[in-house]
Amino acid sequence: MHRLTRINTVLIGTTHPGNIGAAARALKVMGLDRLSLVSPENYPSPEARARASGADDVLSASRICLDLDEAIGDAQWVFGTSSRSRGMNIPMLDMHEAAKKMIAAAGQGQSVAMLFGKERYGLTNEEMQRCHYLVKYPANPQYPSLNLAAAVQLAAYEIRVACLNEGDRTEMTSDLVTRPEICDAGKMQSFYQHLFSTMQEIGFLHAKNKVSMTEKFRMMFNRMNIETHEMDMLRGFLSAVNKNLKK
Amino acid sequence: MHRLTRINTVLIGTTHPGNIGAAARALKVMGLDRLSLVSPENYPSPEARARASGADDVLSASRICLDLDEAIGDAQWVFGTSSRSRGMNIPMLDMHEAAKKMIAAAGQGQSVAMLFGKERYGLTNEEMQRCHYLVKYPANPQYPSLNLAAAVQLAAYEIRVACLNEGDRTEMTSDLVTRPEICDAGKMQSFYQHLFSTMQEIGFLHAKNKVSMTEKFRMMFNRMNIETHEMDMLRGFLSAVNKNLKK
Repeated sequence: MHRLTRINTVLIGTTHPGNIGAAARALKVMGLDRLSLVSPENYPSPEARARASGADDVLSASRICLDLDEAIGDAQWVFGTSSRSRGMNIPMLDMHEAAKKMIAAAGQGQSVAMLFGKERYGLTNEEMQRCHYLVKYPANPQYPSLNLAAAVQLAAYEIRVACLNEGDRTEMTSDLVTRPEICDAGKMQSFYQHLFSTMQEIGFLHAKNKVSMTEKFRMMFNRMNIETHEMDMLRGFLSAVNKNLKK
Repeated sequence: MHRLTRINTVLIGTTHPGNIGAAARALKVMGLDRLSLVSPENYPSPEARARASGADDVLSASRICLDLDEAIGDAQWVFGTSSRSRGMNIPMLDMHEAAKKMIAAAGQGQSVAMLFGKERYGLTNEEMQRCHYLVKYPANPQYPSLNLAAAVQLAAYEIRVACLNEGDRTEMTSDLVTRPEICDAGKMQSFYQHLFSTMQEIGFLHAKNKVSMTEKFRMMFNRMNIETHEMDMLRGFLSAVNKNLKK
């Protein structure tokens, strides 16, 4: 079950501390133990501890992060839970399929981050842009209001089931299992900084198009699952461009 | 989804009213709406209503029963959730299999009851003896302490998935993104020519590394399935680089 420890659950901007405690319990009951909290509100809190019940060890070991990039820095794969894609071109999976991919990746020694947005709004567009996959729950369209800790519970359950069913290796998608080392989110983030600053320098990126353009470039390159040696080439190309620009 | 309304969730002797509210929400979010409460403690309660969130209609419509036999009177099939069979000779299923059986029965017009025992102890031996099947969750043996509402959420989820898998999956997949137009090989080829000539101009590509480098860049970008509007951006970026190079 070592694979379960390579999956990091990231709760972003959680409003109700009770949900954080309940999420810790939901993870532990399925054998997961990595929890990161990005700017949680009203936390730490006795309510979180009460709802965690016997899972206060998971709560105590959770990492509090100032921003999302810090929380996902070591992850090769980022999955975001969302009820809709908001028109973004990110592949969407159901939780069952997503869990199989996560376990396959973890079986290769890769790290996985699974993001849950604020209770009321879910992930923002900017947060979604960090994701390789979006994960959809089969909720009732008339009342899709899945509680945050319940969403964590369903994900943890499917991940544990995928782990227990690992016999079915043939079902695993080959894009995850045979690939060499993939860049983690930290490496991708510094690539984007390098790319966007170069774009700005040559006037390709400016105040008017900055938001939409950086969004599209992120989504395109995230889809690519860039290997670390390929990243070295991309960075080398950008550095060569930088050196050859007019002053 | 009529089949979902033939499945009655029965909570027996629930101690914390918050769990009753959270269970109502867990059901409604998966399209279930029948809830029976056998001798609930401290109920009705504002805490139940708060945790039900927008599912107070399910709560209000729930049936309060004096004993279990009253609650399951109309059911052809009774499923009991339990972490162990306690040596009783009742067939045990995992939640996924159980949900398929429930939906199959409901599809025949039969009624199904699904029992959840008291938070701390689960079903008593006497309650188990009412069951045709026991349902087991794949919990962490070191910490099998699944919260009651979380257990209801997992069951409701598997029931909905079984229902969607049996009927048409359109509801689940309807908002999957359909991919826009992907670049053909001709467009990719002129992109590579543009990229490689730029690389040559800035000295990043030279006689010694040309073959291996161009091959690696091709493989990386081919994997990407670039859309035509993304290609316009990439070409725009390269053109901006070209214009800003030292002569």
